Amino acid sequence: MNNTSAWREYFVATDEQGLHVLAEAASLAVRSLDQPHEGPRTSLAPSQLRAGVRALEVCAREGVALATVLEELGTAVWAHGVRPLDVACVAHLHPPSVVPAVVTELTIAASNQSMDSWDQAPVATEVELHLMEFLGRRLGFSDSASGVMTSGGTASNVLGLTLARSWAASTIGVDVLKTGLPEEARRWRFLASDQAHFSVQRAAGQLGLGRDAVVTVASDESGAMDIRALDSALSQLDAQGLVPIAFSATAGTTDLGAIDPLAQIAERARHRGAWFHVDAAVAGAFVMSDVLRERLAGVELADSVTVDFHKLWWQPFNASALVVRDVERFDLLRVRSNYLDRGDELEGMINLVGRSLDTSRRFDAAKVVASLRTIGQRDFAAMLEHLVGLNDYCARRITVGDDFELLAPASSVTCVFDAPGASADDLRRVQQELLAEGAMVLGRTEIRGRAALKFTFMNPLATFEDVDELLRVVAQRLHRR
Amino acid sequence: MNNTSAWREYFVATDEQGLHVLAEAASLAVRSLDQPHEGPRTSLAPSQLRAGVRALEVCAREGVALATVLEELGTAVWAHGVRPLDVACVAHLHPPSVVPAVVTELTIAASNQSMDSWDQAPVATEVELHLMEFLGRRLGFSDSASGVMTSGGTASNVLGLTLARSWAASTIGVDVLKTGLPEEARRWRFLASDQAHFSVQRAAGQLGLGRDAVVTVASDESGAMDIRALDSALSQLDAQGLVPIAFSATAGTTDLGAIDPLAQIAERARHRGAWFHVDAAVAGAFVMSDVLRERLAGVELADSVTVDFHKLWWQPFNASALVVRDVERFDLLRVRSNYLDRGDELEGMINLVGRSLDTSRRFDAAKVVASLRTIGQRDFAAMLEHLVGLNDYCARRITVGDDFELLAPASSVTCVFDAPGASADDLRRVQQELLAEGAMVLGRTEIRGRAALKFTFMNPLATFEDVDELLRVVAQRLHRR
Repeated sequence: MNNTSAWREYFVATDEQGLHVLAEAASLAVRSLDQPHEGPRTSLAPSQLRAGVRALEVCAREGVALATVLEELGTAVWAHGVRPLDVACVAHLHPPSVVPAVVTELTIAASNQSMDSWDQAPVATEVELHLMEFLGRRLGFSDSASGVMTSGGTASNVLGLTLARSWAASTIGVDVLKTGLPEEARRWRFLASDQAHFSVQRAAGQLGLGRDAVVTVASDESGAMDIRALDSALSQLDAQGLVPIAFSATAGTTDLGAIDPLAQIAERARHRGAWFHVDAAVAGAFVMSDVLRERLAGVELADSVTVDFHKLWWQPFNASALVVRDVERFDLLRVRSNYLDRGDELEGMINLVGRSLDTSRRFDAAKVVASLRTIGQRDFAAMLEHLVGLNDYCARRITVGDDFELLAPASSVTCVFDAPGASADDLRRVQQELLAEGAMVLGRTEIRGRAALKFTFMNPLATFEDVDELLRVVAQRLHRR
Repeated sequence: MNNTSAWREYFVATDEQGLHVLAEAASLAVRSLDQPHEGPRTSLAPSQLRAGVRALEVCAREGVALATVLEELGTAVWAHGVRPLDVACVAHLHPPSVVPAVVTELTIAASNQSMDSWDQAPVATEVELHLMEFLGRRLGFSDSASGVMTSGGTASNVLGLTLARSWAASTIGVDVLKTGLPEEARRWRFLASDQAHFSVQRAAGQLGLGRDAVVTVASDESGAMDIRALDSALSQLDAQGLVPIAFSATAGTTDLGAIDPLAQIAERARHRGAWFHVDAAVAGAFVMSDVLRERLAGVELADSVTVDFHKLWWQPFNASALVVRDVERFDLLRVRSNYLDRGDELEGMINLVGRSLDTSRRFDAAKVVASLRTIGQRDFAAMLEHLVGLNDYCARRITVGDDFELLAPASSVTCVFDAPGASADDLRRVQQELLAEGAMVLGRTEIRGRAALKFTFMNPLATFEDVDELLRVVAQRLHRR
């Protein structure tokens, strides 16, 4: 009655026949990436892309051969994606991905461990812990540090600030996750610079404090938090009877790449018994370089740190981590459930659900470990230093030339600039035209109310000549106006 | 100076040479899954697994050949994972994954689109929208429905209940994400049954209302919300001046698989102008079967619905969706950012960041589309119906036999039972022994304070004979006490 032999072919089996089927399919999938292309993406318009996608019926009554499906995905989808390895793909903190991670993704998906409980991920649990402890040591923490993988920098920041809120509540004897925000919460504030990622505000909104509870501290010319502005904000809060419960510093701002003065912020947070969170989604990778790591001085004073592996560690989405200075901090979060994490398991059976805001969770740690082990610290650091070098070069070129004006000194891998005499609409036109034509995926943002263009250097294979060419293309396009 | 030719090999390139490198690496990755095994996992203890993992240095100064790294992962990790395709892997809603999804994961990772903005995912954005609209139609919504992919059922429930909170606030003129919880929020309540997933409580905690703001409605014998208990809870809330802002129904409870009376709950939510959320993480897949879909009658009345593709759609983690009845509901969430979603893009350039609590986000929709298109609706439905059939069979066997006692009638793919005369500790011992030995990954939970064992049927290749064998093994182990 049922076509169970077809069913058998659908599922990943690890016997000889099953692995043969999987290998064949993987080879077809790789071939589906073989598409004609030039530049960072094709010039198809949204409506054309839509038509191509909508021509594919999601689920017909009868299935379609896998080879056909993969081929269709190739021509309708992969051919028209953005190509992060292209040197003209410079808009965002959007990395090209590395081979060890990509092929490990296949095995992660095939084995399908789920990180919430030990009985769904016995050895995967150990791998994630091993990676988190490695990262903790690199950040300069003691052995009591640990962490958890999350789906992204936003999720990591939300988790860090969730812990901060619980910490503040616990100091007044409140279990905020249980009984909700106390009356005192009306006076609670998060502190972050005006260059902090919007996820800090988003977290405050999510947590019931509201975006307005984020006190925005002015940044200096480089985009780093101005410590005098912080002190003045703190005096104002004191005068108003408001309580800073979390200091959220940024190590690598989204637009300017700036790193806040971590040690100085840490000191002020400690003085007030507030939580010190560092959003190192961008610059966290600097811990891998002997040259760059000193820029993160003070990160080891944090209560929690966000690091995005899917940025400057060249991991495919998603792979982020929240590291805490002391693993016991996760107790602030813990909820026992009847079917997971009952607390009466055999020794060593750790259920990671207790440290996460997620339940089912992918074994992303495997790809990070595979990548780091393959690349090694020396090459990893050299690639990172090369990106910072490209960015420094770009900033110098802009400074010495006449076409553009640099809006802030270069800090890590982003260069933000505008052009003398160009209006916001001119910049918008240039960015949108280059994107529509598929000639360049260029960043566009706003710095202190001023429209700007942005390069983000994520691809270590790019050269100084590539930087020259990017600047030439943008300048030429601007002068067409 | 820099070893840039080695660097080139690290990155996924889609030219001929790059695809050759990727294909070779993929083939090695598949081979790393070829490990000797018997049963759902090896019998290594946590300490042994830990030692094996910790023997791998995460990142030495010099990299290690990829072939070696993959081989090490094979012997240290994949050999000792849980194997969801094994018929004795029956603890959780933890599916074996399907080949089309697994190989598409490789291409998702290789092309590394990010779903937050159109310029990082031009065609991927269209694929996700296409899938969300397909799911919306299957759920019985009109064309105004849409949705967004999330990292899991917990994230989908948190998003749905975040929207519910914003909706309630908007009715009293408050933008809660901006200004925080208003005074009225002390009276806000979520309603969910005592069998609802703990993520409903977690969401209430996260959102600042606190777990205590979840009013727990009694369930009937099957585990479905008792509608008289709901009415009585509503009367009590009225008497206390409390306001139910969200009714969260469950379609497929975690332990019993029960489906709440959706249409009746919808009616009560509508009557009060409250948000109606359906957590169909488990039973959402029933929309694919003409036989099973009627069990979801009323889901089309929801404001938001959670569906987990990484459960009964056999997708690797992570892949979940939140569908809303009207795409404009996402406006409740929207925050413009300077560098993403500025609102001045060319026509059709949609930035999905506006509907999500995440920023960078993986293109998981591709694997779901590849799987559905390959399997087709007929086989998909047949596999699902087979699982429900296995579960019904198991419940009948338990009912007619003497070894066990069924704790609730069978509703979808889970069977919860205990054994006459067995203590909670006996059940615990059986489950932990079978897990430690690698003989069976059996579920253990608690139903209304009563300790229980649980089978969860996720593997369509399992047979009625396999069910007999599972029961036999558990009975035998119990009688050893």
